[in-house]
Amino acid sequence: MEVRRIRELVAAGDAAAAAELVATLPPSELADLLLRLAPAELAAIEPHVGSERLADAVAELDPSEAARLIVRFSRAEAADILEEMEPDDAADVVEELHEEEAEALLAEMQTSDAAEIRELLSYPSDTAGGRMTPEFVSISPDVTVAAAMRLIRAKAPDAETIYYVYVTDQHGHLLGVVSLRDLVIAEPQRTIGQVMRRQVIRLPASADQEEAARLLMEHDFLALPVVDGDGRLLGVITSDDVADVLEEEATEDIERLGGSEPLREPYLSASFVELLKKRVPWLLVLFLAGTYTSAVLQIFSDTLEQVVALTFFIPLLIGTGGNVGSQIVTTVVRAMAVGDVSFGDAWRVLRREIAVGLSIGLVMAAAMFLRAEMMGVEFRISSVVALAAVFIVVWAACVAAVLPLLLRRLGVDPAVVSAPFITTLVDGTGLLIYLTLARYVLGLA
Amino acid sequence: MEVRRIRELVAAGDAAAAAELVATLPPSELADLLLRLAPAELAAIEPHVGSERLADAVAELDPSEAARLIVRFSRAEAADILEEMEPDDAADVVEELHEEEAEALLAEMQTSDAAEIRELLSYPSDTAGGRMTPEFVSISPDVTVAAAMRLIRAKAPDAETIYYVYVTDQHGHLLGVVSLRDLVIAEPQRTIGQVMRRQVIRLPASADQEEAARLLMEHDFLALPVVDGDGRLLGVITSDDVADVLEEEATEDIERLGGSEPLREPYLSASFVELLKKRVPWLLVLFLAGTYTSAVLQIFSDTLEQVVALTFFIPLLIGTGGNVGSQIVTTVVRAMAVGDVSFGDAWRVLRREIAVGLSIGLVMAAAMFLRAEMMGVEFRISSVVALAAVFIVVWAACVAAVLPLLLRRLGVDPAVVSAPFITTLVDGTGLLIYLTLARYVLGLA
Repeated sequence: MEVRRIRELVAAGDAAAAAELVATLPPSELADLLLRLAPAELAAIEPHVGSERLADAVAELDPSEAARLIVRFSRAEAADILEEMEPDDAADVVEELHEEEAEALLAEMQTSDAAEIRELLSYPSDTAGGRMTPEFVSISPDVTVAAAMRLIRAKAPDAETIYYVYVTDQHGHLLGVVSLRDLVIAEPQRTIGQVMRRQVIRLPASADQEEAARLLMEHDFLALPVVDGDGRLLGVITSDDVADVLEEEATEDIERLGGSEPLREPYLSASFVELLKKRVPWLLVLFLAGTYTSAVLQIFSDTLEQVVALTFFIPLLIGTGGNVGSQIVTTVVRAMAVGDVSFGDAWRVLRREIAVGLSIGLVMAAAMFLRAEMMGVEFRISSVVALAAVFIVVWAACVAAVLPLLLRRLGVDPAVVSAPFITTLVDGTGLLIYLTLARYVLGLA
Repeated sequence: MEVRRIRELVAAGDAAAAAELVATLPPSELADLLLRLAPAELAAIEPHVGSERLADAVAELDPSEAARLIVRFSRAEAADILEEMEPDDAADVVEELHEEEAEALLAEMQTSDAAEIRELLSYPSDTAGGRMTPEFVSISPDVTVAAAMRLIRAKAPDAETIYYVYVTDQHGHLLGVVSLRDLVIAEPQRTIGQVMRRQVIRLPASADQEEAARLLMEHDFLALPVVDGDGRLLGVITSDDVADVLEEEATEDIERLGGSEPLREPYLSASFVELLKKRVPWLLVLFLAGTYTSAVLQIFSDTLEQVVALTFFIPLLIGTGGNVGSQIVTTVVRAMAVGDVSFGDAWRVLRREIAVGLSIGLVMAAAMFLRAEMMGVEFRISSVVALAAVFIVVWAACVAAVLPLLLRRLGVDPAVVSAPFITTLVDGTGLLIYLTLARYVLGLA
């Protein structure tokens, strides 16, 4: 209804009143509102709201949504908004635009701002180079602390962070860093070279964004410098990016663990075709892996024909194996992602999962036996089902514990071993275990 | 081997040389090394390494590991280490200790440090109160900017963050905030009251830690003030906590989605009993939900006895339904967790998942049909299997799309609808769909 009120005011020609209504909204809510306005309405309120506030709002959106919003403004307005944004955020938005549209917008922007964005676009968006902002404060080691403070005062309105000042030589090579905290404490007449820290943790522009996030997190830094191959300072990654990166990576891991390729945009923004493309390939891979189950059952069709009651427990047995596998694989893959477990721990992981699996197998065997007895099947069948439960659970535990570690060792992202993948693997082998046991114990052909 | 070398040096009575060896290690590596030393070895190197560096190392560990390490030091050493840590980190460690041990350690510490930790321990660890640090810089609105800078210089070594200075009245009520950035730019003779921002986003101590993390992240703040019911400033949550909180919450969601209760400590630190406790209850719940499958199969045992080939496709059909459900439930639960989807979107989510599900169903039906034909079963059976695939996939899509949203609406954490939960639900209903179709199409009893 906020939207409706805004629309009415704009339609009545009172865009100033509409702008006043949205003046107190936090940027994220303003962004949601903007997404629901038509181009003409956006054009009407833009001069009253101002490109600075619009930029703050656009920066709150996911890049793909922001791109959809920005093209609804006129080129000149859109260029103004992008100029007001932090270059790294603006670059993320421009990257989502069609190429001609992006070129046209960059051409409309001030040359220096456009150049910064072009520079950032030359790095893949999931690397340190793609995440960094070129707006940092750098300084020569020869100036005094007092002069540095004057420089910071002048740069503060533009730089994304003034809490770290980077010390570079005349060619831009990174020599050291001083925090604003250090500067505030230092005696004003000392030189930067005397007070700077020389041991600066730095990242190459090609480093993975996740590595950047982990470093920032581990050291509780507010920013991390990004350098080129010659050690020249290119930009900084600030701590506000850490949460975004971690969230993005966790979302990817979760979607992979669920058995699909990660979406490249928020769920509701993903198109029909995008959803199909991310899901169908994995479903077909899982289907192919699963065809094994039909082969096993066909091979054992005589057994099943003789004792149809064996069929009753198929979904329950392979389901339990799949559940155990899913519990373990998600826990182990996550533990690897946060760095708690590595290949060196494989033997330890396997041993504990076998021990835990054996205990769980006995519990599930008891449950299976009770269920079978309740259904009134023969005692021999109940026994086979219970025995199969123990073997299947332990087997599922072994597969789920070792496969992610083994894949990482082989250089494959362990997140491809999704819960459905383990479930499917355990389905076929579980059936083989169950029906072989049944044949043997029941003395069937 | 680092460890072995340290041990040898300590055994040879040269703890100083051992300490020198570890002097250049980053805190996280020092922490890993400390975990592997015996109490006597720790006691030998402690005076040489110093409680400050030991505190940095302990702070890198997960609280449960840190607690195990800290009790291996003497009480006096342990108290020194805790005193050197940030109070919020120290409180997390003390919380993991046995009550008598915690009391003894607090009694050994300096009264003021111990009091801070006791205060923090009074808040649950997953709330804003439990996450905050009481070490902030606060100031009266009457002092000048120049005086404030002098105060900051004096406080800088102790406070966790000096980048925000909080303005309070004589009773500690939060009036405003000035950033160090503001102070550096402001004219020195103005008062804090003139330059401070009055609109301060604040959190009650009882707020969920995830809410605190989201606010910090949304606004790109470096710190967020925490207040009591009367608006008195109690502490601040700093941005370095955001990543920890997000990671913790993502890990919990992932473990829940995998079908177990989240572990309270890192995977390798979790005990055998802990693993059983987190997994077995869910396995039994899923088992009970899954017993439905055996009942369905028993009801249809005549059908299965007449056409044993129907059995061949049971795992493949319900597996596919489970895979589709798993893909959707993980995507939707994650989208809810990051705030992309809410109950208001339920209808939109359902519509798109039905549309996508129908397309996927047709693809999977074709795959199923081909597989059935390859196995040489009757054309009628292949057709039933293909038809069932469409129904099961669409049904799985509906259940997986709506259930998480519905549960959230009912106040239940949507993460309880794990992939195994959806898989189990779809197993029984999928069988019902399949065998009913089979009876009808094949004209069986």
